[in-house]
Amino acid sequence: MENSEPTTETRRIHEGRIINLREDTVQMPSGRLAKREIVEHRGAVCVVPVLSDGRVALVRQYRKPAESALLEIPAGGLERGEEPIEAAKRELGEECGYATASITPLFKCYLAPGYSTELIHGFLAGELSLTEAHPDEDENVEVELYELEDLLPMIDDNRICDAKTICGILALYRLRNG
Amino acid sequence: MENSEPTTETRRIHEGRIINLREDTVQMPSGRLAKREIVEHRGAVCVVPVLSDGRVALVRQYRKPAESALLEIPAGGLERGEEPIEAAKRELGEECGYATASITPLFKCYLAPGYSTELIHGFLAGELSLTEAHPDEDENVEVELYELEDLLPMIDDNRICDAKTICGILALYRLRNG
Repeated sequence: MENSEPTTETRRIHEGRIINLREDTVQMPSGRLAKREIVEHRGAVCVVPVLSDGRVALVRQYRKPAESALLEIPAGGLERGEEPIEAAKRELGEECGYATASITPLFKCYLAPGYSTELIHGFLAGELSLTEAHPDEDENVEVELYELEDLLPMIDDNRICDAKTICGILALYRLRNG
Repeated sequence: MENSEPTTETRRIHEGRIINLREDTVQMPSGRLAKREIVEHRGAVCVVPVLSDGRVALVRQYRKPAESALLEIPAGGLERGEEPIEAAKRELGEECGYATASITPLFKCYLAPGYSTELIHGFLAGELSLTEAHPDEDENVEVELYELEDLLPMIDDNRICDAKTICGILALYRLRNG
């Protein structure tokens, strides 16, 4: 298959705080021109924090686009020049108040590759110790602890309805059943 | 926790083909005002198509925001007024050329709830029969068939790097190990 859609024209639409938006005109393999709306995002990290008793720490946070409070694994955007693993440790501290002595990559994925450049790096964190949570000023986050066996049915009945969180929980399930 | 961020002002930024963009000013539980950039999306569906021999059908498709061809489960946007299960059947036909006699919900999730309203409905499809693929004019899609046991390590080494696809593959793994 043809592996690229060269850009013939770019229109900048929005330069924002979390995202930018542009519209590219691209040339398809057929030669035809097509439009692509592209949300530019700096990338993000997420972490599955596992306590010594096996429980998983999640955060509940109001999400304006969903107009509801979602239960998610801790996550956040990469700061400029920040390594993903450092960002994951930072977010784990900020959102949950944990430091970790064991953190390993779990997956890496685009969240909405049809229109967003956002790539999220998923980690597994163990050997946790309590520090002190300092959530971002604009965030309103509460930590909740769950057994993995209780989280699985929460995917089935949509109480867990966030893609990175489903990836993280099922990746942990696979590790424990591997 | 306070469960809402009431909107005090909305600024419309972009009305597009796949997405719209607006910026809401919201009132935090503290009373402070904050800005929220929100990508509006009509919602989407994705399908894990399982052949009678157990193999899984994926599609490889160039994704401009990733500037690469990603391996994904078949997926696409909801059309106006369309039921998710009907959209899933339609996309399975358009992208893979399959009709299904057995389709069931697998998960439902927001892809990027920090800034996007997109909710994707995931399905499992079996009892497949070949029809004829008619991909969208603007798409360039190739079907590839894999054993589940070969897909799992492809998550680990990032050859599979799409969130809904990781959700779908790991959900199938869980079903087979349940």
